[in-house]
Amino acid sequence: MLPFARLTIIGTGLIGSSLARAVRAKMPGVTLTGHDLDPDVRARAQALQLFDDIADSAGAAVTDADLVILAVPPLAMSAVADSLAGDLPPDAVISDVGSVKTSVRDALMAALPGPQRIVPAHPVAGTENSGPEAGFAELFDGRWCILTPPDVADPVNVERLAEFWRRLGSEIEIMTAEHHDMVLAVTSHLPHLIAYTIVGTASDVEDVTRSEVIKYSAGGFRDFTRIAASDPTMWRDVFLANKDAVLAMLQRFTEDLTALQRAIRWDDGDTLHRHFSATRDTRRRVIDAGQDTAAPDFGRGPRSA
Amino acid sequence: MLPFARLTIIGTGLIGSSLARAVRAKMPGVTLTGHDLDPDVRARAQALQLFDDIADSAGAAVTDADLVILAVPPLAMSAVADSLAGDLPPDAVISDVGSVKTSVRDALMAALPGPQRIVPAHPVAGTENSGPEAGFAELFDGRWCILTPPDVADPVNVERLAEFWRRLGSEIEIMTAEHHDMVLAVTSHLPHLIAYTIVGTASDVEDVTRSEVIKYSAGGFRDFTRIAASDPTMWRDVFLANKDAVLAMLQRFTEDLTALQRAIRWDDGDTLHRHFSATRDTRRRVIDAGQDTAAPDFGRGPRSA
Repeated sequence: MLPFARLTIIGTGLIGSSLARAVRAKMPGVTLTGHDLDPDVRARAQALQLFDDIADSAGAAVTDADLVILAVPPLAMSAVADSLAGDLPPDAVISDVGSVKTSVRDALMAALPGPQRIVPAHPVAGTENSGPEAGFAELFDGRWCILTPPDVADPVNVERLAEFWRRLGSEIEIMTAEHHDMVLAVTSHLPHLIAYTIVGTASDVEDVTRSEVIKYSAGGFRDFTRIAASDPTMWRDVFLANKDAVLAMLQRFTEDLTALQRAIRWDDGDTLHRHFSATRDTRRRVIDAGQDTAAPDFGRGPRSA
Repeated sequence: MLPFARLTIIGTGLIGSSLARAVRAKMPGVTLTGHDLDPDVRARAQALQLFDDIADSAGAAVTDADLVILAVPPLAMSAVADSLAGDLPPDAVISDVGSVKTSVRDALMAALPGPQRIVPAHPVAGTENSGPEAGFAELFDGRWCILTPPDVADPVNVERLAEFWRRLGSEIEIMTAEHHDMVLAVTSHLPHLIAYTIVGTASDVEDVTRSEVIKYSAGGFRDFTRIAASDPTMWRDVFLANKDAVLAMLQRFTEDLTALQRAIRWDDGDTLHRHFSATRDTRRRVIDAGQDTAAPDFGRGPRSA
């Protein structure tokens, strides 16, 4: 018994196309309809045969759906919801995959009839690549999917959506949109902002050529370039849509960085050593929790080739 | 014709033990002597049979060497050099593998007779793991080794050391110690300081539990935990030994971060998008230069399992 029989995915980039592939692989009975606002991306999704049908408009894509998932950047949610509101079947459940949940919830509640069927969700998974070619069916395997149902959401819809994600291999957590946005500001949004910053800083040092920065990137810099290669539009939207939590975390980060900077300036080796020892333990816990591999250096380089 | 016949390595951690393994694999004719200040580490290196002989003191380790490589944290270089100065054969070449070069050069020049044989070096390679068990022979394959010979160094010694590293699979670059320290402040020291900071910040947010930080680390945070798991003693020394360059880079980073912070606060999406698009190009160049794999997500997760 499938939780949903007719799924429409709006947005066929990395996440939307991975979702289509995962549903094909794990729930082959589901009818898949897709749409992307960008005609070029739509054509590429079509060529990849990811969907049973690619519709030319968001409205046409949802007329027959019992689950609609919006896989578009956070600030595009409102316009997409507006464009399909008139064509949405009365009982269809609406969800999304956005990295910010408070603003998305507010946008969907404002644009769509039937607040009981709105169940925003966030699969915490991704890579630095973009577009329908970058997706793969296993992206959500063993990752967390966070559901942030508003108080008015029908518990049956919440459970159906939870079951949908479980079948794709994800583990489910339920929390408020506000708490989600705080947690993700720490674990995802702040790290991305820092990575984007440092990659820019390194490119601008007059005494060090850009080719030197690239050549010696194995010393640590390259890890930041991966994150800083993520989709610019999506991340612009994330920072603007989760502004308050991001700015709050940034303030803490800056205080902590200033404290370490002061320790360096005053030759306070004990403070540095104490701080660096504590962070080691966090790494061990990430590996123990199955959220990363223990292979040194991420298994990169000749050893794993 | 081997560039050196009798190599002594002082310090048998990740780098020293990888060096021993690499020499065994690529230059099996070389006689290998090791020493570590820590009796426990010494015993572990002995048990791993990494060396032909493990000496009980740095002095005893170098009496017969034609190349001595110091693989100890930057601030330990001076004391180690003092401890072996009296036993060093007159023609032995002295080098090291430290991540900071100006302070190491000054320490070696002050402690050792014969400035013409001092050729500091820095293989830009490593993992987040420490100790003799963490080493492996391929660590230097395809990586850069930067030589920073002082003006008084004998060019013959510089070329012999370059050939030694080439035989281990490394590519050679020669630059001044001062320029090295500026380049590495950008590509390695600043990224490590930032990673250490953010991992600490994330652990201290009252509204987000530590287990939430770990659970949702796949959203970006986990990439920072890897770097922040690096050896605390070595990194304390790096920041103190390269203080001026690190503080200068930190100032630039803070300015850049403040600019992005301001763009977020004032909803300046264009500035964010422009910055995030530029950093994408840097990632492509790192991959083109062979300094990282293009596998999405570093090939982690079910796909590569």
